[in-house]
Amino acid sequence: MQPDDPDSFHVYDTTLRDGTQQEGLSLSVGDKIAVARHLDEIGVGFIEGGWPGSNPKDAEFFRRARTELRLEHALLTAFGATRRARTTAADDPQVAALREAGTAVVCLVAKSDRRHVERALRTTPVENLAMIRDTVAHLRAEGKRVFVDAEHFFDGYRADADYALEVVRVAAEAGAEVVVLCDTNGGMLPTRVGDVVSAVRDRTGARLGIHCHNDTACAVANTLVAVEAGVTHVQGTANGYGERCGNADLFSVVAGLETKLGRRVLPPGRLRELVRVSHAIDEITNSAPDAHRAYVGASAFAHKAGLHASAVKIDPDMYQHIDPAVVGNDMRMLVSELAGRATIELKGRELGLDLSGQREALGRVVDLVKEREAAGYTYEAAEASFELLLRDETEGPRRFFTLESWRVIVERRPDGEVVSEATVKLVSNGVRHVSTAEGNGPVNALDRALREALEKSYPGLADLDLVDYKVRILDGRSGTGAVTRVLVGTSDGRDRWDTVGVDENIIAASWEALQDAVTYGLHRQG
Amino acid sequence: MQPDDPDSFHVYDTTLRDGTQQEGLSLSVGDKIAVARHLDEIGVGFIEGGWPGSNPKDAEFFRRARTELRLEHALLTAFGATRRARTTAADDPQVAALREAGTAVVCLVAKSDRRHVERALRTTPVENLAMIRDTVAHLRAEGKRVFVDAEHFFDGYRADADYALEVVRVAAEAGAEVVVLCDTNGGMLPTRVGDVVSAVRDRTGARLGIHCHNDTACAVANTLVAVEAGVTHVQGTANGYGERCGNADLFSVVAGLETKLGRRVLPPGRLRELVRVSHAIDEITNSAPDAHRAYVGASAFAHKAGLHASAVKIDPDMYQHIDPAVVGNDMRMLVSELAGRATIELKGRELGLDLSGQREALGRVVDLVKEREAAGYTYEAAEASFELLLRDETEGPRRFFTLESWRVIVERRPDGEVVSEATVKLVSNGVRHVSTAEGNGPVNALDRALREALEKSYPGLADLDLVDYKVRILDGRSGTGAVTRVLVGTSDGRDRWDTVGVDENIIAASWEALQDAVTYGLHRQG
Repeated sequence: MQPDDPDSFHVYDTTLRDGTQQEGLSLSVGDKIAVARHLDEIGVGFIEGGWPGSNPKDAEFFRRARTELRLEHALLTAFGATRRARTTAADDPQVAALREAGTAVVCLVAKSDRRHVERALRTTPVENLAMIRDTVAHLRAEGKRVFVDAEHFFDGYRADADYALEVVRVAAEAGAEVVVLCDTNGGMLPTRVGDVVSAVRDRTGARLGIHCHNDTACAVANTLVAVEAGVTHVQGTANGYGERCGNADLFSVVAGLETKLGRRVLPPGRLRELVRVSHAIDEITNSAPDAHRAYVGASAFAHKAGLHASAVKIDPDMYQHIDPAVVGNDMRMLVSELAGRATIELKGRELGLDLSGQREALGRVVDLVKEREAAGYTYEAAEASFELLLRDETEGPRRFFTLESWRVIVERRPDGEVVSEATVKLVSNGVRHVSTAEGNGPVNALDRALREALEKSYPGLADLDLVDYKVRILDGRSGTGAVTRVLVGTSDGRDRWDTVGVDENIIAASWEALQDAVTYGLHRQG
Repeated sequence: MQPDDPDSFHVYDTTLRDGTQQEGLSLSVGDKIAVARHLDEIGVGFIEGGWPGSNPKDAEFFRRARTELRLEHALLTAFGATRRARTTAADDPQVAALREAGTAVVCLVAKSDRRHVERALRTTPVENLAMIRDTVAHLRAEGKRVFVDAEHFFDGYRADADYALEVVRVAAEAGAEVVVLCDTNGGMLPTRVGDVVSAVRDRTGARLGIHCHNDTACAVANTLVAVEAGVTHVQGTANGYGERCGNADLFSVVAGLETKLGRRVLPPGRLRELVRVSHAIDEITNSAPDAHRAYVGASAFAHKAGLHASAVKIDPDMYQHIDPAVVGNDMRMLVSELAGRATIELKGRELGLDLSGQREALGRVVDLVKEREAAGYTYEAAEASFELLLRDETEGPRRFFTLESWRVIVERRPDGEVVSEATVKLVSNGVRHVSTAEGNGPVNALDRALREALEKSYPGLADLDLVDYKVRILDGRSGTGAVTRVLVGTSDGRDRWDTVGVDENIIAASWEALQDAVTYGLHRQG
């Protein structure tokens, strides 16, 4: 059932704060804004943007978010800590940074394990309660909605249940809307989590949330059991990113809530975006998507066993736990030529191409896409390259120029200076052009030389800019060596398009993507 | 407590049968024997070797296992199905293959979902019960211990509980020692699993087992909840390998049972082998070890946040859910822009450097790390570069050569061929070397040219291999242009180390990482 009040259940994402604690994961401010947009597309209720009082990058994120981030559904949330001991919340600079982040909602971390209060915070249990009460009350008085993350709650509850409960009561009485029970060290199992949540609910009456880590491989299960035990606020991260073994994977949590427990926690129709958003965020964080990830993995609905094959054809529901389309995934064995054709035809319609009569060309496109994706291409992230491929097969190829050769030289001179220079030789409109350009790197030089060679024939090219460049080294598959995938983003000042190139050689892969980028730009200009 | 009777709790591994259903995973007979040896090292009770009646490779495995596999602790188990409809167990060739596998234990898969009986098996519910009864009784009469996997049990129980329960009763009455409740499609959540296991135990009195798949990200949790509800036999696979989203990770299951639920399910001292065995099996199956895997991952006990570092020094148990040594893992401190002196000092200790007296040098290192990470470096993913930086600041710089210049040329010739060539000029041990090499890309060419130039002075370099190469384009920060970060992984056949380079120019960034890689390799060789 869709709740009438969207606040009756909170889906709270902490990818941008707790997720970035993952080893090797580091996001720029621009990356964080892009991730937030994707999270908003699936309709999470809250996006925790960072800890403005702890580092300048997070403070910059909140500044830029005010102008650059228009969220349709989610509320941006700033994270911070309770005030320091022996001061006031109003005078604490870390609390000030939280106020100044300009969000309607703040989430405060508070210690709830007495041992951490005494040994890490080095203050008294009584002062810790005062710190919570003051900081919550201060931020409420400033007009903020306040959530409190009760850190190390489950360990604290085991060590001193009365103190842990007092933390929950004090936070709620001071005006915290939700008190989130955190399994900070990630050591809990589901039965224990359910028992503790029930006890806390009964003994405090506070609205409760849950925040789990995956150190026992039970983060998603612990979160779902907590919901059954009465929490109405779940925290997690995209793809389960996070420190050590990661946080609860928010995507598995919402999929479990919606498809298994019958809770409508996302706006209608958004669950279907799960696979796309999961992969898009992996792309931004430069993480290799886990093919075996629950619900969204490429293998999540792939059937290998020959035993099953014919039975699956009779009744797929006998061999899969949900219809994969519900989360935007596909059953892999059933990707028949027909199903493939239908998808391509739909994509063509999106691009304004009526392909309904072109059965044979569609079959060729399906085969080409399969073959090229197996070789490392990814058309999901490079729709302009896909459109060129589709138009080539259905309308005939478009050639604005014929390449003769290119060459790139990168040199570090004895004085330490590094210079890049590229030469492109090509024929366009019957005229041979040879042009050489320098750049701040080999790809930039190659891009400049290509455009210089073409500008005489196509002056409109001057408007195009290379605005994004991504490189991914793909593992060798079936015995072949590693290949490099390059994605290039190009803009004409109004629109942006993305193209892809794949090659063993990074410069050759870049060339392929650049060539598609320019061809697509010229095609758009007619 | 260690049970007096080792049969009172079964740890049953199905890596070699169900685990090999994983997409892309294919094991030779020799691989399977090697995996079985490792599983025996951690003391699992049963190793399911395969399905001798379904394919010749599995039949060969059982033949070779008789002479080549000496198991200290585990019993080898053969997997098969109940007899076909309208025949006898004695006359069924698939059952014959099971008999002839020569194992003391067999595990039989039986349908327990009435819909699967009728629509996939195409027989009657009554005949299916006869098939189970006959096959179990026949194999018991042949002297085998028999376990029965009740396939699709949880779905079957929901559709027709009476029939599913009858399957359990018939199997147990015919002599099955354990009836294993299988969540074959992997769609269950823990609360439901616990409820169903309790009901089946109460209504049949049979000894029960559990077999879960990870399609809801709850396989480990479901298994542990089933144990709490009364099963005394758990099935799973090494590292959670398996079809779709994988099986329950047996290593997380046994770690959870031993460290969280206080059950002694492995022989004494074996849990400590978990990390080693997990990685060894990943090596055999050619899988990249998941750094975030619970208990055994390289990141499972890694701490990043600077906030924690000083507290971790006081009492590590406050920040980790178990002592990592219990499963053979280590606590690691990650160096990042959040690090302070305490982190660096701890990190130095890991590297065997006592820095406690070097306050000033530590301060310089902290500043350098912050400055360089702000510029795009990431030392948590490049510990060798960090070690060089740390040693340079505390012990003085080490220089094995002086670079004069390098140059890379990548050319696409008119015939379409792409060639890469690099030249490096440097001085080592007072001698100037100029060397040129080709490669399959610019970085490969540069790496070869560098090592060729150095090999006359340092012949040990011939042992080093570039085994990993990663590229990340980082957004412009605070007004500067985009920079490229390159991470290089190098191996000497035994150990691996990672180094980092950052530059506007991708080739220059690669050079920096290569130079660190070679310098670190030479430092290691003394």
